[in-house]
Amino acid sequence: MKPISVAILGATGSVGQRFISLLDNHPWFKVVALAASDRSVGQKYSSAARWVLDTPMPEYVRDMIVVPASTEAVQAKIVFSALHTEIANELEPQFAKAGSAVCSNASSYRRGEDIPLLLPEINADHIQLVKQQRINHNWSGCIVTNPNCTSTGLTIVLKVLDDAFGVKKVFLVSMQALSGAGYPGVPSLDIIDNVIPNVGNGGEEEKVEWEPRKMLGKLNDNKIDLADIKFSAHTNRVAVIDGHTVCASVELAQPTDPKTAEAILRNFSAPESARELPSSPRPVISVRDEADRPQPRLDRLTGKGMTTVVGRLRRDPILDLKFVVLSHNTIRGAAGASIYNAELLVNENLL
Amino acid sequence: MKPISVAILGATGSVGQRFISLLDNHPWFKVVALAASDRSVGQKYSSAARWVLDTPMPEYVRDMIVVPASTEAVQAKIVFSALHTEIANELEPQFAKAGSAVCSNASSYRRGEDIPLLLPEINADHIQLVKQQRINHNWSGCIVTNPNCTSTGLTIVLKVLDDAFGVKKVFLVSMQALSGAGYPGVPSLDIIDNVIPNVGNGGEEEKVEWEPRKMLGKLNDNKIDLADIKFSAHTNRVAVIDGHTVCASVELAQPTDPKTAEAILRNFSAPESARELPSSPRPVISVRDEADRPQPRLDRLTGKGMTTVVGRLRRDPILDLKFVVLSHNTIRGAAGASIYNAELLVNENLL
Amino acid sequence: MKPISVAILGATGSVGQRFISLLDNHPWFKVVALAASDRSVGQKYSSAARWVLDTPMPEYVRDMIVVPASTEAVQAKIVFSALHTEIANELEPQFAKAGSAVCSNASSYRRGEDIPLLLPEINADHIQLVKQQRINHNWSGCIVTNPNCTSTGLTIVLKVLDDAFGVKKVFLVSMQALSGAGYPGVPSLDIIDNVIPNVGNGGEEEKVEWEPRKMLGKLNDNKIDLADIKFSAHTNRVAVIDGHTVCASVELAQPTDPKTAEAILRNFSAPESARELPSSPRPVISVRDEADRPQPRLDRLTGKGMTTVVGRLRRDPILDLKFVVLSHNTIRGAAGASIYNAELLVNENLL
Amino acid sequence: MKPISVAILGATGSVGQRFISLLDNHPWFKVVALAASDRSVGQKYSSAARWVLDTPMPEYVRDMIVVPASTEAVQAKIVFSALHTEIANELEPQFAKAGSAVCSNASSYRRGEDIPLLLPEINADHIQLVKQQRINHNWSGCIVTNPNCTSTGLTIVLKVLDDAFGVKKVFLVSMQALSGAGYPGVPSLDIIDNVIPNVGNGGEEEKVEWEPRKMLGKLNDNKIDLADIKFSAHTNRVAVIDGHTVCASVELAQPTDPKTAEAILRNFSAPESARELPSSPRPVISVRDEADRPQPRLDRLTGKGMTTVVGRLRRDPILDLKFVVLSHNTIRGAAGASIYNAELLVNENLL
Repeated sequence: MKPISVAILGATGSVGQRFISLLDNHPWFKVVALAASDRSVGQKYSSAARWVLDTPMPEYVRDMIVVPASTEAVQAKIVFSALHTEIANELEPQFAKAGSAVCSNASSYRRGEDIPLLLPEINADHIQLVKQQRINHNWSGCIVTNPNCTSTGLTIVLKVLDDAFGVKKVFLVSMQALSGAGYPGVPSLDIIDNVIPNVGNGGEEEKVEWEPRKMLGKLNDNKIDLADIKFSAHTNRVAVIDGHTVCASVELAQPTDPKTAEAILRNFSAPESARELPSSPRPVISVRDEADRPQPRLDRLTGKGMTTVVGRLRRDPILDLKFVVLSHNTIRGAAGASIYNAELLVNENLL
Repeated sequence: MKPISVAILGATGSVGQRFISLLDNHPWFKVVALAASDRSVGQKYSSAARWVLDTPMPEYVRDMIVVPASTEAVQAKIVFSALHTEIANELEPQFAKAGSAVCSNASSYRRGEDIPLLLPEINADHIQLVKQQRINHNWSGCIVTNPNCTSTGLTIVLKVLDDAFGVKKVFLVSMQALSGAGYPGVPSLDIIDNVIPNVGNGGEEEKVEWEPRKMLGKLNDNKIDLADIKFSAHTNRVAVIDGHTVCASVELAQPTDPKTAEAILRNFSAPESARELPSSPRPVISVRDEADRPQPRLDRLTGKGMTTVVGRLRRDPILDLKFVVLSHNTIRGAAGASIYNAELLVNENLL
Repeated sequence: MKPISVAILGATGSVGQRFISLLDNHPWFKVVALAASDRSVGQKYSSAARWVLDTPMPEYVRDMIVVPASTEAVQAKIVFSALHTEIANELEPQFAKAGSAVCSNASSYRRGEDIPLLLPEINADHIQLVKQQRINHNWSGCIVTNPNCTSTGLTIVLKVLDDAFGVKKVFLVSMQALSGAGYPGVPSLDIIDNVIPNVGNGGEEEKVEWEPRKMLGKLNDNKIDLADIKFSAHTNRVAVIDGHTVCASVELAQPTDPKTAEAILRNFSAPESARELPSSPRPVISVRDEADRPQPRLDRLTGKGMTTVVGRLRRDPILDLKFVVLSHNTIRGAAGASIYNAELLVNENLL
Repeated sequence: MKPISVAILGATGSVGQRFISLLDNHPWFKVVALAASDRSVGQKYSSAARWVLDTPMPEYVRDMIVVPASTEAVQAKIVFSALHTEIANELEPQFAKAGSAVCSNASSYRRGEDIPLLLPEINADHIQLVKQQRINHNWSGCIVTNPNCTSTGLTIVLKVLDDAFGVKKVFLVSMQALSGAGYPGVPSLDIIDNVIPNVGNGGEEEKVEWEPRKMLGKLNDNKIDLADIKFSAHTNRVAVIDGHTVCASVELAQPTDPKTAEAILRNFSAPESARELPSSPRPVISVRDEADRPQPRLDRLTGKGMTTVVGRLRRDPILDLKFVVLSHNTIRGAAGASIYNAELLVNENLL
């Protein structure tokens, strides 16, 4: 198979760096362009970027020259977007129009009626929305999005529970990693010996209360019927480098016991179209039975950072079940998510 | 007023150290004995204890000789207990029988029918249980307890909301400080760049789901009718030295809006008997209106560590209100709590 | 005594906040103006500043209106400067000319031939330079500086050793706190689970290798003869909120043993003119004899953060002595230093 | 090649876990026994060990039954020792006598006259001491040791400088990772927002001042002439999970400039016998030219944790050069070191 050309928009930021790292030696994709803001344009990538990952900068990008994030400068079948929301708002449709499949980590178009919000292991069928999208906008490319990093792991667990027992209400509290705020992000004086009981400038809780409803919704006549589930979210920032931890309590339509739920979670596998892709999580869900797991430092790299880890399944005194979910926020929750989406597009012949 | 003699059981541990620190220059109390385990007995306190607070060891204890925790070796009107549960189980009744008022931070007797579980700013009247207690056991002393540090701040806020609107259900997730586990406590390899989604060896969540019901209950015919409120708790350990943060969502009998609730919380004052004691929190509750407060490092010492700090009051999409509560776990939640209880005993002439 | 009017330049930054906090209820000084950059001018201080200290914002500043840092807007006998270097370069002489005594924490004029670089407990006599300074520049005010926070504690210890034994060479490695970089300062992703083996944009090591030589120098004919001591410094940033730790090895002209050095350090007291000022450290030096002290979290607040703490005095296999010094970088090493200098000016009738 | 049987003594501790992890899929070695203390004997490894690494427990050990650390229970060509000093004192000679090649991370025999203290990339020739050792003790096996983790990276850099310029004096200050203290090791209350200016119960500085002299010494007539270099060490513990950082200043017999030293360090390669082994560091030394590197979180995994990373090469105002060295303390500095030593034994036909 001939490699498929891909580009990264926002390549110097921390999510951009994860894209570069995860695309090193990718079996299908070849990075042909790195785009960033004016300040970096024209420089070698190794000069333009302050590399913040704990794995070395891959050799293949060191001497690439950074280009502007425009459709003239960037021509690739797939464009990965690690852009800020306002810039993504403007640029992503231009790339879709110019024929690229935009796989975006930005929140700009997640709520679009004809835009898939994807976690391939649970709602791979939603990708069919791109056909309607192309009709609506007369695009030869498309836009496909992945959710907010805090929604990611939780929604995967909820999908399994919803299919088996019906989920009605979800109360959740996140303890989110610092890498979610990018670089420089959270000042050290704000987080050493501390917790910040809010994330970003607001909006995080609203995202987490809405996005899962779309992903858990049904594709029906070329649009998504939002799942009829109520969410209440508290989001917090803690002194963790990578890995978002979420405590959740859920009400089920058909109550069950923790052991049954655990067995069903263990046995879950992705839909066939999303099961054997290069980035498919192996396993999709890891269930821990220790009393104090999952923990971000120890469990975030399960399944190369693509696996959702769940533990402490127990009865909830008010609703039905409570549990803890962990997901790597910059791999499964950001760059890895967009790459997995791109692989699904390829597999479904939707490029 | 002649100083009242007090002793500390478990004086070398981290809660014992807080007792020593808070009792330095106390206007009513004079420490006459420091008791600890055999290993320390006979040594000067300054040799026996590994001091872990960031304020210096008070001069008055440096040369005191550590004695055994027995009624023979320790004679004091008030005995503060920072003992481990199993030892407290055995020793506290012996001291009560011998005539001391035991003000205990241990969990051993919190559930006893005739044992007050006190937060004086909200349930000072429960102290009257000691009269029944003396009859039941033929004690000249008594046992008075304070709750688990995680329940403390939350229960104070709930009391105000319960009086005004009726509380029916409470979801809560704690992010607890390391000092709650004592010293050496949590290994650093377990908490740097990490969260532990459980506290202790279990039992923490059960305590937090039960203790507030007793404190919010009504004193009725010499016993407490437990409040009819349902609790669901997730408890977590985070990389914070002092100060427990709790995210809570509550259902009210009479729904209200955040502004009204905030005003009522701001205006709360303790019952008269608990209002002007040396350790009375000033104010009882501090309401923060910034979007990212309370934070443990910045807010834990509000009111010398005795004030409950609440913030982020907002509507809850499932229940009625959500908010964040912060309380200093070794001051308001442990040693300061027991001392405040002792002051109430004195003020009510119940010594 | 009538209160002396003082102003703070750079009042919204983290050092500015320490000034505000330390000047709350100061027995001699009354804050009459808070100056900051254009962005803050015209606002109430409580709106303009993002307060980062763990003690509450003092009431007296909450409603003060922030003014520009100009001699028109700020009229005070003493002006405390927490300005950035480039701005201090320009503004400090203007204030000195306009008649204010500028007590500066900026590095701009520390090397000036007629500018005192002061640690009153060791070189209070250097303050006499202000007389020459007034002649040289025809100023009615003056500029007085305090050293870099990393030099502070070390230089105090070196002075005592130099007087007793003669110091010839000093090798030092610092582990510096985050508050030294101001706010937002060091990104959390750079310091959690990490050490940064450099401080600032360079220049830190050069300061630490030069400033002590001036402070340890002799006042001679209206100028300072630099001490003939060689320094080699490595500076590092570590995950500590407040308190700089310095490991030092020194060569002495007259070698001694650790016990003798320790006794001399314990017995040191400040020159008489600097001994009984409101901010005088009590004691000047605290010598710890535990094997693992000083530690920043436990010892930084010794003497209200003004005391220099030294420990681990032992023989050095290459030079003569090695030891560890701790000093609170934003109290003794910044705001407290400038205030102490101002008090010395008052005491010496040099306002 | 038939796999060589190896065993791990002290297999449940944190260094033991590193051995297990690094030996997973080792091309030459096959783990045939896991030995630990009585408490663990008879259990499956997955039950006996509390796994603390952030990579999962390898499958191959999960069901192995833990055996006692005795020559009866453990029969293997190579025995890796992660034992505590006192136990290693007693057991390691028994294994050597019984015919095993003991590759030890314990400090017990590092100073033995006929015991090689090895860093194969710099003193592979010292391994010849085992021949003399076998004669002296009539052992069919042998004991080979690796140095203290703090000496490791520094000594590798010093070797290159010593060969080129002659090293005469070395000042060093370490900032050591928590994993060096094992598990549970350092309490979190001792290290969050803190530095501990000492390591272990003493002895660390003495080791670091002596061990490099043996490794930098010359093998001469079946013994090592210690290098004539003076060391002065300050050792500190900081809030880092893995990776020891060392600041060093050195005096050279033939002074040089930083650029020349840097070039020589970059070009260094291991002696031929140690160059192409499975654990050989690739490269041996990585020289960073950024102003703020090496940093433990970003650089410790260079060369799979076996590479020594050096940076900030600059002139020293007292001696000749100063620089910063980073080395992964549980890989290059412990388990990886012993495995590399074992590979050298095999390569030299000394099993």
